[in-house]
Order: sequence, then structure tokens, then C-alpha cells
Amino acid sequence: MLLTNATIVTLHEDKDYGLIEEGAIALDEERIAWVGPAADTPDIYSTAQTHDLGGRLVTPALIDCHTHIVFGGNRATEFELRLNGASYEEVARAGGGIVSTVKATRAASEEALLADALTRVDALIAEGVTLIEVKSGYGLNQDTELKMLRVARKIAQMRPVDIRTSFLGAHAVPPEFKGEPDAYIDDVCIPTLRAAHAEGLVDVVDGFCEGIAFDTAQIARVFDVAVELDLPVKLHAEQLSNIGGTQLAAKYGALSADHVEYATDADAQALAASSTVAVVLPGAFYTLRETQAPPVHSFRAHHVPMALATDCNPGSSPLASPLLAMNMACTLFRMTPLEALLGMTAHAAAALGDTNRGRIAVGAQADLCVWDAEHPSELAYRIGFNPLHNRIFKGSL
Amino acid sequence: MLLTNATIVTLHEDKDYGLIEEGAIALDEERIAWVGPAADTPDIYSTAQTHDLGGRLVTPALIDCHTHIVFGGNRATEFELRLNGASYEEVARAGGGIVSTVKATRAASEEALLADALTRVDALIAEGVTLIEVKSGYGLNQDTELKMLRVARKIAQMRPVDIRTSFLGAHAVPPEFKGEPDAYIDDVCIPTLRAAHAEGLVDVVDGFCEGIAFDTAQIARVFDVAVELDLPVKLHAEQLSNIGGTQLAAKYGALSADHVEYATDADAQALAASSTVAVVLPGAFYTLRETQAPPVHSFRAHHVPMALATDCNPGSSPLASPLLAMNMACTLFRMTPLEALLGMTAHAAAALGDTNRGRIAVGAQADLCVWDAEHPSELAYRIGFNPLHNRIFKGSL
Ligand SMILES: [Zn+2]
Ligand SMILES: [Zn+2]
Repeated sequence: MLLTNATIVTLHEDKDYGLIEEGAIALDEERIAWVGPAADTPDIYSTAQTHDLGGRLVTPALIDCHTHIVFGGNRATEFELRLNGASYEEVARAGGGIVSTVKATRAASEEALLADALTRVDALIAEGVTLIEVKSGYGLNQDTELKMLRVARKIAQMRPVDIRTSFLGAHAVPPEFKGEPDAYIDDVCIPTLRAAHAEGLVDVVDGFCEGIAFDTAQIARVFDVAVELDLPVKLHAEQLSNIGGTQLAAKYGALSADHVEYATDADAQALAASSTVAVVLPGAFYTLRETQAPPVHSFRAHHVPMALATDCNPGSSPLASPLLAMNMACTLFRMTPLEALLGMTAHAAAALGDTNRGRIAVGAQADLCVWDAEHPSELAYRIGFNPLHNRIFKGSL
Repeated sequence: MLLTNATIVTLHEDKDYGLIEEGAIALDEERIAWVGPAADTPDIYSTAQTHDLGGRLVTPALIDCHTHIVFGGNRATEFELRLNGASYEEVARAGGGIVSTVKATRAASEEALLADALTRVDALIAEGVTLIEVKSGYGLNQDTELKMLRVARKIAQMRPVDIRTSFLGAHAVPPEFKGEPDAYIDDVCIPTLRAAHAEGLVDVVDGFCEGIAFDTAQIARVFDVAVELDLPVKLHAEQLSNIGGTQLAAKYGALSADHVEYATDADAQALAASSTVAVVLPGAFYTLRETQAPPVHSFRAHHVPMALATDCNPGSSPLASPLLAMNMACTLFRMTPLEALLGMTAHAAAALGDTNRGRIAVGAQADLCVWDAEHPSELAYRIGFNPLHNRIFKGSL
């Protein structure tokens, strides 16, 4: 198939959009076979089926590289309680917080979790997403962590979208291990990781390194098992304070360090040295009304690739719009529209260890978005408006 | 028609959701004929055609009471320039700012303006809006102001939605009257208001009372003509500073005072005394990265009804999602989910002088939203997710 009459945003390098006006793209099954100005289209495509895009804008398809999109229940009651003036203690007494999601996720059937997750997956797909990272971490026991990961895998059977799973057993200390994080890591988290890996459910190993979760020594024990199992790692680091998660992630050559609001310039240098992507999550920053933005200047200065994601989750970021995450990255973190687009495409792919997507280049998977827009800056500029005209997944409209 | 098996959010008063579990609603053509618990359904509806809502949530349809949804061009270039570090002067030299929208709106044909506006109108309708206020104000000359208002009227012929027009000639001083705001008001704005009124294009008269726009004396001259023409007024007041716009609006018995970030407690008292609605616009607050939120506490204390709206416009609020405006009202202004819903329904109707909508009550226009949600707090809680199942406009699905 030959896509013609398009303004193509190749993102072939990071320095600009790599725009091709009046461009064409040749697709060979699931791959991009050729891209360039229409006038230069090789003769071998002269008999190809053509699809006129009416002058529309084409970008790589979007990638959401950090989500907790599988969960039970929702936290609207807690949201409302807080806005009616309830204190954190009152919310906790009313059963709120992550514990409420753990409880609802443990109680839900695989079918119910899947059906609920698909409503959010459909929202991402409607904005042009073709690859979604999905974490476990609301089970915090073996049965439920495995259930969440099985649901994540099933999403790819139910919808035209690729899924990468992250094992996030080290997300929080469950109520039954209160005050005993080390026992939880050794007795539940690590055995569950081994079991999930044995079932082929784990693509990446993740953790939450924070005062309210796990320290670097505890995360390191989980990461050591990941290394043993030959699984890549990533980490929730420096979201609310700096306790060394970014440096730990860099030491383990992590694919990404995520949130990173409290990362320092030295942390940015460490990420650069380990080729670790900084994943910024403006939805959580916005929802929690944080004031410290991630050190975008340092990431730029040290050439740390910045990705961004919805962080779709029921507590700190009930966000299901990658386009809104792009606007928030610009408005709240002062990233440029180009950085926001790279963050949802090429750099998001890098954050998932995927070198075959996120740019419009020969050999890349043919995942594309066709937008009713004239210039790529419009994608981050609009708020709560979806200009997607068509999504192409593995070469299919 | 009888709608059955619904959780009904009547909003019959302001103090709570007015929830009816296992409720039913009888529609008589374009009106609500009866609402209550299904078990109490009067016998006369026993032969009515029933529509089972599957236990879903029903609210009044949403109302967007403040938009500038008709305009030419977009300001994505300016958005990108700013994020790449350009100063306001550089942006202005590159042709940015409201002047660029005025230029594009003047140049656009009626057909082009309508087609472009409909893309945004469709986004509002997709989230359950049935009534949209649309302002002029990017023409700033007679031909273009009238053109904008004609386009606004045409929206209601093209889509199943009601439109209220506001004449906003006093939006900005056009380049050709630079430094001569009084001459612009007297020689262009007021004659254009008379001409637009003569053509039946004006429902309400609006103005922008601000240091960068018009002072209270200039706005008062426009309002005096509105009084003479028997047209209600409303005002953009106290957005960036306090120069007395809210008090002026109250003095003229305005339907609403909009933005009102810098309104004082005394201003809130004045609004209460004149039954003027305070319309908060979190999209502009968010986009402009303002830090002073409107005095929600004062509005509550003095029982000033609070409405909210998208303020959909190409510069300070390129927002086309009423649900996101609801979330922003909660997250940024600490309004409650109930206040946010009232603000997009009953209080938005009040801000447009419409007493026949915004609540589910006998005699009200049968404009309803059916949501895939269990509780109304979910509507403001989610971010960038649209749980609308069905929209009912004038009794039709
Ligand atoms: Zn996360
Ligand atoms: Zn406005």
C-alpha cells in the first residue's frame, strides 16, 4: 500500500520534526518499506494500491509507556471526600488510598478487570495509541499480580494494540505486611516475580522507590532477580523526594526512570551515562498539585531522552488521554511541542526498549496516525480535543 | 417515552445531587413530564414506549455557557514559539496574539468559519452538551462581527444543539483603532451592536473589562445600549486584575460575571445581591498558568451560583472538553464534584438566563445525558475520558 498526499512528520532525528511536505509512505505488510517526497516515489510502487490522505498530517502512532490501566474499582468517592474537606486520615478511615484499589483488584474476576480496562484502552486507541505498557502492582499477592498480568496480555487479543507488561510487585507494602517491607519483598514480591516470569507474563521489572514505598536496597534485591532472569528494569523514582532511585536505575542500566520530579542535575548525568530514558508524568503532577517540575533543562543539557505517558491509574492520575498528557507536558513542564511528540513516540519506544517504532523510517513497524491537522505543534496545543482521522496498526487502517 | 432502570441525578436543589435510585423519567415530546422512583410511575405511562437504561446514571445534559468557538485559524505556532523561549514581543512581531485571530477571522468565509467551528461543536456534543453560548469578538468591525454571529446561529441548523449568541464587540481594540478605545466603542462597537440586534443576531451583550481591553466607563456605554435594546448583559471581569468589572456587572443586573479570579468578597456580595452567576473558567487559568484562583469560598458564603465553562478559544483556552473543565474546576479551584456538575448544568443555564434546563424536573426541556458511570462524582474525577453513553436532546436520543 502506498499512502500519498500527506505531510509526514518522520521524527527521523530528535532535533526537528523531520517534515516531508507532499510526502508518500510505502507499506510492505507490517513494515514501512519507503518514505519520502511523493515526487521521488520509486517505480516499484507505481502499481501499488494507493490511499490518498487528503493532505493530512501523518506521525508515528502514539505509545503510552507508563500505565496502571488494569485495576478494580475507581477512586471517585475519595476524590469527592477530599474536595469536601476530608483529611488524609479521614480518607484512609473511609477505606481510601491505594489499599482500596488493592482490595477491589483482588476481589475482581479476570473478566471484570479486562472489561473495565478495555474502556480505558479504547480511549487511548481513539487517540492513536498502538503500544501500551501495563503494570501489575495492585495485587501485592501472587494470585492477583498474576491475574493482572494475564489481563494485560489479553488486551492484545481483544484489541488491535500491542502490550508490554511490567511486573510491579514492589509498588506498595500490602496491609498484611504493614511495617515489614523486607519480608514482603523476600516472601511475596520476588517469588511472585519468578512465578510470573515462568508463565511468560513479564517483559520488564518495575518498582516504586519512595519514602512511602521501598528504599533502594529493597528495590536492588528485586532488580538483582531481574538481572538473573535476564529481564530489563525500570523504576518509579524521585516523584515526591530524592532517595537515590534515579542513580539506582542508572546503575542497573534501566530502560527508564519515571516521574523524576526531584531528580538532580547529577541524576540527569547518570541517566545520560546509562542511556536511560526519563519518563515524565504530568497527569500525576497535575492531580497531586505538585509544584516541583522535573528538571527538563538538565535532561536537555545532558541529552537524556524524555518520554511522557498518561500514568493512567485510579489514584494519582485517572488520565486516559495521551494528547492531554502532551499538552500538560508543555503547559506544566515547559517542554516544547516537538519534545512532547517525541515523548509519546520515539522516546516512549526507547523507554520500552523497542527500537522498531516511534519514527517513520524504513523497516519500522507500520504504526501511524493520520491527523486532521496542518502542523504537528497542533497536537500538543489543543486541550481535550482529538483530531485523529485514522490510526494505522501494523499496516492496517 | 418512559426511561427506566436509571440512577437519576436530578439536581433538584443545589445542596446535593438529588439522587433517585431505580428511577424513571417520562418524556412528553420535548419536555420532561414526570420523574421519580420507578415504583411510583403513574398509571398513565403504563402504555408508554419504554427505554431501559441498564442501571446507568442520568444527569441533565451539559451546557457550555462561555465559548468563543467561532474563529479563524489557530494559535499553535504561537504556542510553540513561546515554549521555544520567544518573548511576548517576539510573538507579537511574528504576528501572534489576538490580532492574528482577528486577521484570520476577517479573512475566512462564513462557510469556512462554520466548518471549523463544527469540529469543536462536535467535541462538545460528544460529551453531552445540548446548549452552547457562542460569542462574537474576533471581528472588531461590523462585517466580521455580523459574520461570526450568523455562523453561530447556523450551528443550530447544522447540529442537534441549541445556541445562545453573545455580542462581544468590546473584546479588544482592533489595530486600526490602536490607542483609541473610546472611538472604537462609539464608532464601531455600538453601531455594530445595533445592526446585529436589528438582524436578530444577539441574545446577550458581553464585554471584556480589563486593563488590556476596556474600562468600566467604556463597558457601561455598551451596556446602556443593551438596556435600551432590552438585551441582558454579562461581562468578562476581574480575570487578570480588579478594575471594577464585577461591581459594574452587578449594577446592571448581569446574567453572569466571568473569570472573576481577582474578585473580592465585596464583589461576591454584589453578585449575590444582583443574582448574577459567577462563571469560572479553569481552562484559561490553566493555560495562562495563573496562580490566583477565583474566590470560591466567598461565592459559597454569599450563595453566588457558580457556573463553569470551557471558554473554548484559540488563545487562552483551546479547550473543547466540558468534562475536563469540570475536573479542572475541582483540581485547580477546589470546587466539589457536585459544584462542578451544577456549574455545567443548572448554574450554566442560569448564567444564560434559561430557567427551563439544567435540572431534571417536570416541565424542563428533555435534555439529558446517560453515562456509563455509577455515581456522579465520577464525571469530574476522570481526566480525558468520556463515559457518555447517550445524549438526549429535546426528548430524542
Ligand atoms: Zn506509575
Ligand atoms: Zn471569554
